[in-house]
Amino acid sequence: MEKIKVTVWNEEREGEDRWQPVQEMYPQGLHSVIADALNKESDITARAALLSDEEQGLTESVLDNTDVLIWWAHGRHADVEDRFAQRVAEYVQRGMGVIFLHSAHRSKPFMRLLGTDGYLCWRDEGERERLWVSDPSHPIAAGLPESFSLEHEEMYGEPFGIPQPEATVFIGWYEGGNVFRSGVTFRRQCGKIFYFQPGHETNETFYNPHIQRVIANAVRWAKPEIRVPARGCPCVERLEKR
Amino acid sequence: MEKIKVTVWNEEREGEDRWQPVQEMYPQGLHSVIADALNKESDITARAALLSDEEQGLTESVLDNTDVLIWWAHGRHADVEDRFAQRVAEYVQRGMGVIFLHSAHRSKPFMRLLGTDGYLCWRDEGERERLWVSDPSHPIAAGLPESFSLEHEEMYGEPFGIPQPEATVFIGWYEGGNVFRSGVTFRRQCGKIFYFQPGHETNETFYNPHIQRVIANAVRWAKPEIRVPARGCPCVERLEKR
Amino acid sequence: MEKIKVTVWNEEREGEDRWQPVQEMYPQGLHSVIADALNKESDITARAALLSDEEQGLTESVLDNTDVLIWWAHGRHADVEDRFAQRVAEYVQRGMGVIFLHSAHRSKPFMRLLGTDGYLCWRDEGERERLWVSDPSHPIAAGLPESFSLEHEEMYGEPFGIPQPEATVFIGWYEGGNVFRSGVTFRRQCGKIFYFQPGHETNETFYNPHIQRVIANAVRWAKPEIRVPARGCPCVERLEKR
Amino acid sequence: MEKIKVTVWNEEREGEDRWQPVQEMYPQGLHSVIADALNKESDITARAALLSDEEQGLTESVLDNTDVLIWWAHGRHADVEDRFAQRVAEYVQRGMGVIFLHSAHRSKPFMRLLGTDGYLCWRDEGERERLWVSDPSHPIAAGLPESFSLEHEEMYGEPFGIPQPEATVFIGWYEGGNVFRSGVTFRRQCGKIFYFQPGHETNETFYNPHIQRVIANAVRWAKPEIRVPARGCPCVERLEKR
Repeated sequence: MEKIKVTVWNEEREGEDRWQPVQEMYPQGLHSVIADALNKESDITARAALLSDEEQGLTESVLDNTDVLIWWAHGRHADVEDRFAQRVAEYVQRGMGVIFLHSAHRSKPFMRLLGTDGYLCWRDEGERERLWVSDPSHPIAAGLPESFSLEHEEMYGEPFGIPQPEATVFIGWYEGGNVFRSGVTFRRQCGKIFYFQPGHETNETFYNPHIQRVIANAVRWAKPEIRVPARGCPCVERLEKR
Repeated sequence: MEKIKVTVWNEEREGEDRWQPVQEMYPQGLHSVIADALNKESDITARAALLSDEEQGLTESVLDNTDVLIWWAHGRHADVEDRFAQRVAEYVQRGMGVIFLHSAHRSKPFMRLLGTDGYLCWRDEGERERLWVSDPSHPIAAGLPESFSLEHEEMYGEPFGIPQPEATVFIGWYEGGNVFRSGVTFRRQCGKIFYFQPGHETNETFYNPHIQRVIANAVRWAKPEIRVPARGCPCVERLEKR
Repeated sequence: MEKIKVTVWNEEREGEDRWQPVQEMYPQGLHSVIADALNKESDITARAALLSDEEQGLTESVLDNTDVLIWWAHGRHADVEDRFAQRVAEYVQRGMGVIFLHSAHRSKPFMRLLGTDGYLCWRDEGERERLWVSDPSHPIAAGLPESFSLEHEEMYGEPFGIPQPEATVFIGWYEGGNVFRSGVTFRRQCGKIFYFQPGHETNETFYNPHIQRVIANAVRWAKPEIRVPARGCPCVERLEKR
Repeated sequence: MEKIKVTVWNEEREGEDRWQPVQEMYPQGLHSVIADALNKESDITARAALLSDEEQGLTESVLDNTDVLIWWAHGRHADVEDRFAQRVAEYVQRGMGVIFLHSAHRSKPFMRLLGTDGYLCWRDEGERERLWVSDPSHPIAAGLPESFSLEHEEMYGEPFGIPQPEATVFIGWYEGGNVFRSGVTFRRQCGKIFYFQPGHETNETFYNPHIQRVIANAVRWAKPEIRVPARGCPCVERLEKR
């Protein structure tokens, strides 16, 4: 059986100096931690792509060889060129799965695919979050406990500017009094989309086994059912004649 | 303009001795507090119906004269006869609006209309709840602040056994660490359905102006667009001929 | 790998005399044709259950050993006892998949799970139907052409009394001028539901390879992700303490 | 009561020579026919905006004074500047209603708001279409018969590249054997969206009283519940403290 091919995209640039707290938490970049965890799964193979790569890491060759794209970005959404954001959206519409992590709610591909601006309120105090599984039979929740907690996360709070999801898999509770639809799914034509809120760059989130489990589950869920080529709207003949 | 006709159904029986804490909180029954608040709205007229009324308060005459039915019950779901539960479901399918309050998530009409069992976890410790508006432009949230709190409510927690809602208007946060989709809407054929979690019988919830506002908004939202008669599936002729 | 266990339920009674046109089309009963086709799939094992079986073919033992229940019925909906209809609904809510065929849109389990009355208009003139795949990447449409036709089917027409589906996989065109959402999916807690319109008892529908393909696809799609036991709403302790 | 302010946007340019068949069918432009019909409604006031107007007819001043934008375009989607398409999308997200007519399924604002490419198949033979009301209690279907026909329309057929709609109000039947979800609704944050398939520029569609009724109903349905200002994601303080 062929492995599911994952590309973990990070807004980082090759060789750049990371901000000290990020450097300490993720010395090789958080894309490496995400990819390493996925590569321990027998049915998944993951590699990284960076903003500094050719065509911002989003060449047609990369996307043609990607079953599921994972997108992490926080501060450089505007640096992504429109043409590459559009390319990602079209690949998803034509079958590629995509997982948007954390602050990817403001990335160009997220907004192009959902049609909303990803509005939310936030607070970066490393507060306690508890994630509840609100859809226990969803494949993305497989093997998880009813709820689990993260000692430190950036708070993202409602109202969340998304369309009504196909499924609401996780809802988050924060000690400061906020709630958030932390794990939600959508479909756009042939492509499946999962947004997952945890993953601030100075928190230990991506080392958490529950988080790693969610991401691996989501990869399996989001892998393409079919992929269709780029095409226009065809003119067709009558099938039924009087 | 004709007023919206509301019937507030309560599982209480006329003249019964209430349990002391309920008697103290709602001396005239909580249905009276709900109806009184609605009757202050210029476009709504509300009356009560009780389990001890003729045909358990659910005669065809009552329902024919009801635009929106409000259902409150906690301990006597099993006492409602199947034929009346089914009657309520059919009236909703044919256009009558319905608002299920609090523990009505386990009432027969709720389960018949949603097709799920209303599963949830709970804790009756009168803990603090904060309600977040997750769909700020929904008519049921009109005039409300971003969030508001109730000092004492029974906790109802995820996972909530409902189908994916048409809209998720409120999400609740509890000090004990739980979350809940506290205000959700559904449609079943011609009828609109709103479920709202607050309203434990020993808490002051129904005196809260925000809660009263939600219920009045929901009444306006749920009023029938059309009402259709009881009918079978008709046999029809061809409209297009070769 | 364990096979998916399918039970094909038919309202027929063991040994009964079938109406002549049905006898000619399906001499062993249409449940046999459906089950035989499924048994040719290497990953599925199917058996039949009839109305005349013990507990109307719906014992707990049968349902415990059923991953996906297929329900065909046309004229005897009222003969199914409420307690067994309710049992089926609960098994679905707890994880069992279900496929409702043709006139099962008026069966008790369908109405209990969807919360609507399955209203539609109809015409039994064996007219031409063309089925369009409206959701080409849905697993239930795998391997099917863009559209395919049935020479003779009973017309079922809009408006169809169902909630908005999770996915609209097929839409039917009839030569007499009607349309119908012929293949639609729903979820109810842990259980997946597929309704499929073709399958009139005097038409050759269940011998059609495309129809057999749809049913086999739907079985694979509807097989349980998880199954949960019967349970009440649990009282739980605080997870977060001040 | 204040009237609902409608702007009918057309890709036409002021003073241009129309293609002869369009000139004959809509001598003043089809935007005029649409606006004139709306202006006969006592609660609506409509005006036109053209591609040749200042900022392509989409100045902030125009949009600030628009409750519901109607968008008709067929051949010049690419001429609309990205910044104005994005502006329209943002106005919708912040509350403005929008109605996309006919070939607007390939317009930039449609694709930005839905996140799909609007794929469909088509045939311009002026064939007979019958529109079925599949959601009879939806406000957009108010006052319409069960179905009605158009003698000549361009065929748009499934599969339609849209997300699963909030409501499927109309489904179209074509004599050539195709079907289409001809009237579908969506929400994107505060804004309501209606797509309606009829309206080819050489057909008499916009003179049809049923079509005019649908558009007027859709205007009333899509008018803003609230409008919110442009804003970023706010940083907020804790509401609950230990």
